[in-house]
Amino acid sequence: MSSSPETRVTLIGAGTIGISLAALHLTHLHSPESLTIVDTRPDLAVVVKDQLNKIIPKQLGPQISKINLTTNLTHAVKEATIVQESGPEDLYFKQSLWAEVEKHAPRNALFWTSTTGIPASLQNRSMQDKSRLIVVHPFNPPHILPLLEIVPAPETSQSVIDATLAFWRNRGRQPILIRKEVKGFVAGRLAWALLREAVHLVNEDVVTVEELDRIMENSMGPRWAYAGPFKSFHTGGGPGGLEALMKNVGGSVQACWDDAGRVNIGEDWEQKIFYQTREAYKEVDLDERDRAMRRIFDAVAEEKSRSS
Amino acid sequence: MSSSPETRVTLIGAGTIGISLAALHLTHLHSPESLTIVDTRPDLAVVVKDQLNKIIPKQLGPQISKINLTTNLTHAVKEATIVQESGPEDLYFKQSLWAEVEKHAPRNALFWTSTTGIPASLQNRSMQDKSRLIVVHPFNPPHILPLLEIVPAPETSQSVIDATLAFWRNRGRQPILIRKEVKGFVAGRLAWALLREAVHLVNEDVVTVEELDRIMENSMGPRWAYAGPFKSFHTGGGPGGLEALMKNVGGSVQACWDDAGRVNIGEDWEQKIFYQTREAYKEVDLDERDRAMRRIFDAVAEEKSRSS
Repeated sequence: MSSSPETRVTLIGAGTIGISLAALHLTHLHSPESLTIVDTRPDLAVVVKDQLNKIIPKQLGPQISKINLTTNLTHAVKEATIVQESGPEDLYFKQSLWAEVEKHAPRNALFWTSTTGIPASLQNRSMQDKSRLIVVHPFNPPHILPLLEIVPAPETSQSVIDATLAFWRNRGRQPILIRKEVKGFVAGRLAWALLREAVHLVNEDVVTVEELDRIMENSMGPRWAYAGPFKSFHTGGGPGGLEALMKNVGGSVQACWDDAGRVNIGEDWEQKIFYQTREAYKEVDLDERDRAMRRIFDAVAEEKSRSS
Repeated sequence: MSSSPETRVTLIGAGTIGISLAALHLTHLHSPESLTIVDTRPDLAVVVKDQLNKIIPKQLGPQISKINLTTNLTHAVKEATIVQESGPEDLYFKQSLWAEVEKHAPRNALFWTSTTGIPASLQNRSMQDKSRLIVVHPFNPPHILPLLEIVPAPETSQSVIDATLAFWRNRGRQPILIRKEVKGFVAGRLAWALLREAVHLVNEDVVTVEELDRIMENSMGPRWAYAGPFKSFHTGGGPGGLEALMKNVGGSVQACWDDAGRVNIGEDWEQKIFYQTREAYKEVDLDERDRAMRRIFDAVAEEKSRSS
């Protein structure tokens, strides 16, 4: 769905996530003049132009120069209907930011934070109206990956939750309401849980970094791209589903859980694994990644619609 | 690569994995007469015909009736160059099976077990020559997913390891040598580590089974289908890679690890999660799954080859 001329989005922060969100918003906004990016960096215009050009379709290129760029927060949020923040992961920065945004933005503007870990209930502490702020956590890169974890604070109003979910649903994205403010939300916790075991296995020389990645790319990756873990294991269990599977292999599963790695941040594994990763992946082709991921989504969507 | 007429494969066990392996071997064997399936079930012919027909390309259909089917193990392995076992996950069954196979199979035949958890060093205990057995652990469904975890026992000979890796590499699959006989091997440990956290989050009502699956399908699934966790996080870290990412978010990662779920098999979560999963996925479309996964692999391979 295209947005009406009344939708005006202000993005705070022109880092990787901010730029990717700009690419995403450009695809639905009525005009690029409805998009504002605010960042205090002196090279803002150059960064926006260079980085956006790399990720948007060629025909959108001429729109970049029409985006409003500013270093002035007050000015940037004055007419916004949505303020979406992707600034530093710093509690005090975010607390004072939202107090300031609240003073200058229109009364009904939605306030979204892209934080990966600081809950809205901490970020909203200096706000007059704590019901306005909600976490909208995108998954990198958000212009490709449709997931948005929507995490309200206990104070967030139902109307803010509803409007946020509706906004993204109407634009073909996948907003999922997270019902409790757990640390790291859901996608992060799942990814980090798997990474911990991955680090353990490489650290124990069971496989290398590159072998572990190949294992994932040729097994769970494609499987979970089509169906998440519960659906996949349910299917794998045959007619008896997940329950039958667990009856069958529960003993092995528990043995793996009991034997699981318990590495921690800052321990000895880091240099070994950082080194192997750097050596394995000297060049990273972001364009290839984006093309591949777009095609994965298209393939899954087409096959699902073909069945229904 | 097509196999020469000298390659003769005997599959032990006509369960889901055995049938899927039959579909895979049919695509490279010189003729269906080079394939033998042995199973004691009385309805073997019906099962093989019905199940294979569902998963092989239509033009291979006429080959099914030419596969050798038998209930007689001695007869089945007599001329095999490869014996691949996908029988029950039962140590005593496997130990006596391999002792018997060894007596009747040709001297140079490779012995492969599809076990998800019983290491070759336990299965080989009753064999005269323990150097012959190796784990070749496929990922379900193996006729689609290319991963094969190759896990030697300490006694397994280098020539058996090399021949096994070469066989699968030559047929376009992805055999990965696992260097230690860890419980659950690598793919399983990673999947179960993630499932444990997934179960915890649903059990705590943070999200439902269906929501958690949608999170995976719209974030890590497609990402890991293209690039495993190390490469993905390395890319996500920008120019500084994985190390920079960990410097940035290591605190949040550790907080998630410290807060991670510690559910166990047989605890109260089971009924809740089995119920939600059954309700969410009443009908499972295996054909859709297989089509979607094939297209995911094609898409990734094409985009990678386009860049190189």
